[in-house]
Amino acid sequence: MITVYHSEHAQSYIAALSRLLPGHRVSDQLEPDARYAVAWNPPEGFFSNLSGLQGVFALGAGVDRLLGRQDLSPDIPIYRLTDAGMAEQMVEYARYGVLHWQRSFDVYRTQQQAQQWQVRPDRRKADTRITVLGLGEMGGRVAAALAEDGYCVSGYSRKRHALDRVNCISGEAQLNALLAQTDVLINLLPSTALTRGLLSAKRLALLPAGSALIHAGRGDQLDENALLAALDSGALRFALLDVFALEPLEAGHRLWGHPRAIITPHSAAQTLIGEAAAQIARRIQALEQGQEVTGKVERSRAY
Amino acid sequence: MITVYHSEHAQSYIAALSRLLPGHRVSDQLEPDARYAVAWNPPEGFFSNLSGLQGVFALGAGVDRLLGRQDLSPDIPIYRLTDAGMAEQMVEYARYGVLHWQRSFDVYRTQQQAQQWQVRPDRRKADTRITVLGLGEMGGRVAAALAEDGYCVSGYSRKRHALDRVNCISGEAQLNALLAQTDVLINLLPSTALTRGLLSAKRLALLPAGSALIHAGRGDQLDENALLAALDSGALRFALLDVFALEPLEAGHRLWGHPRAIITPHSAAQTLIGEAAAQIARRIQALEQGQEVTGKVERSRAY
Repeated sequence: MITVYHSEHAQSYIAALSRLLPGHRVSDQLEPDARYAVAWNPPEGFFSNLSGLQGVFALGAGVDRLLGRQDLSPDIPIYRLTDAGMAEQMVEYARYGVLHWQRSFDVYRTQQQAQQWQVRPDRRKADTRITVLGLGEMGGRVAAALAEDGYCVSGYSRKRHALDRVNCISGEAQLNALLAQTDVLINLLPSTALTRGLLSAKRLALLPAGSALIHAGRGDQLDENALLAALDSGALRFALLDVFALEPLEAGHRLWGHPRAIITPHSAAQTLIGEAAAQIARRIQALEQGQEVTGKVERSRAY
Repeated sequence: MITVYHSEHAQSYIAALSRLLPGHRVSDQLEPDARYAVAWNPPEGFFSNLSGLQGVFALGAGVDRLLGRQDLSPDIPIYRLTDAGMAEQMVEYARYGVLHWQRSFDVYRTQQQAQQWQVRPDRRKADTRITVLGLGEMGGRVAAALAEDGYCVSGYSRKRHALDRVNCISGEAQLNALLAQTDVLINLLPSTALTRGLLSAKRLALLPAGSALIHAGRGDQLDENALLAALDSGALRFALLDVFALEPLEAGHRLWGHPRAIITPHSAAQTLIGEAAAQIARRIQALEQGQEVTGKVERSRAY
């Protein structure tokens, strides 16, 4: 028995999983004999009655909202989606934000409002310095794709990675030094004890005047008041924001109306139902046969 | 003797050409013994006093403004820049416009103004149908790059081309049929007798509801009133426009303030001074040695 929770797409997941796992009953009912839960942001208490649970499949790449819950024993393994079409979407989102900066579309938009016709000298790709925070499945793909495009790309991660054409660093001192040499900062870190609050007022102030932020990690990593101050002063030319401290971004929040903010509703990398269901079905089949599967979350590092 | 005309960058071109062609005098003075002119949009009459002219080098890819001039004999060869870094810039510009459509950034901008948080189902690259008009140095590179990105790309040109992964067509009937199957139309045609007025009200009406136009060919190819009507009705979700019937776009033109228009000041593919000067210097050296050079304009086809 597999129980599914998704506020919008539960029926689609049930249909896909039923087709892929004909030997299993799949339902959105909370039945105590459910062996697996497939869920996106389930309400508190959701897991309380599922005493036979052997695994939870998160319908997303980030699992921070499944960790530390009162209703879910730390003994029950959590699996996150690995890619499922999301990294490709994140590359698109990042590439758009980088082009917005490199080709001055933000400046031309302001000029358009003033009916001003003035060509800006453009930066070339090789002279556009990009720093990607997080080099996991999302960040690694984004850094590699932008380097392939011809940009000058650096990448920061907790443990130092090695990626072709990407200047990989780790450690706080190196990060702070790198921020001062960054034109476009792309945050794709998971939410962990180490990354919460990482984009503080102090770190944002290290960025050169006229740089830009693409923020698609998690809302709790960014000091939104510090961001607003940097946008107000023009220290940051713009911010492309997909995640927020509180989602949905609340009505009346100053970011909604800020001329230097571009707001998307946590849509940068959407879970593709077909690919997610196929990945989860493969893993359930493997688990049922006693095999190891990928994507198991290490609670100590939170991803 | 080489004479240079450029309203903004004449001195930069003179410096670069002087360095590359030490045996030649390079100046912005109109001297009758000039053998070569290097020019961007010179005023009427500019060529009248240059009786010894053996060639004109256009500082751009399009040469329509050099053809049919009263002051320039049709016997004098015109050379256009071939690439010189411009195709790469055009790929960036087209990619930005395509992502703007595919990833719904126009819709999210409208939602942001209404403080509305709503995820849109995104189109995948393979399901995004792009038609590129013109498959020369610009259009060919753009079509190939977008096909490489994973988009579904067709290309239209006067003579049918063959390009990997691109559905190449020619002829008016095929073009009209293709427009009805196009999500993003990218115009990169040169201005010729055959392309002037090509983007008429009738052709724009063939595009499916909710498609978009990226217009970076020449202003005389597009019926701006028909475009405004298509934007007003929402038949076109947006237009990204780099060229206009009259440039600079005149103050008060309705396109400036249209919420569905993105205006750039003929900046999509800027001539890179260093690369352009190097290319022109190589050609002048070859011509002086009696060799053939590339980039010579065929007046009958106008490019």
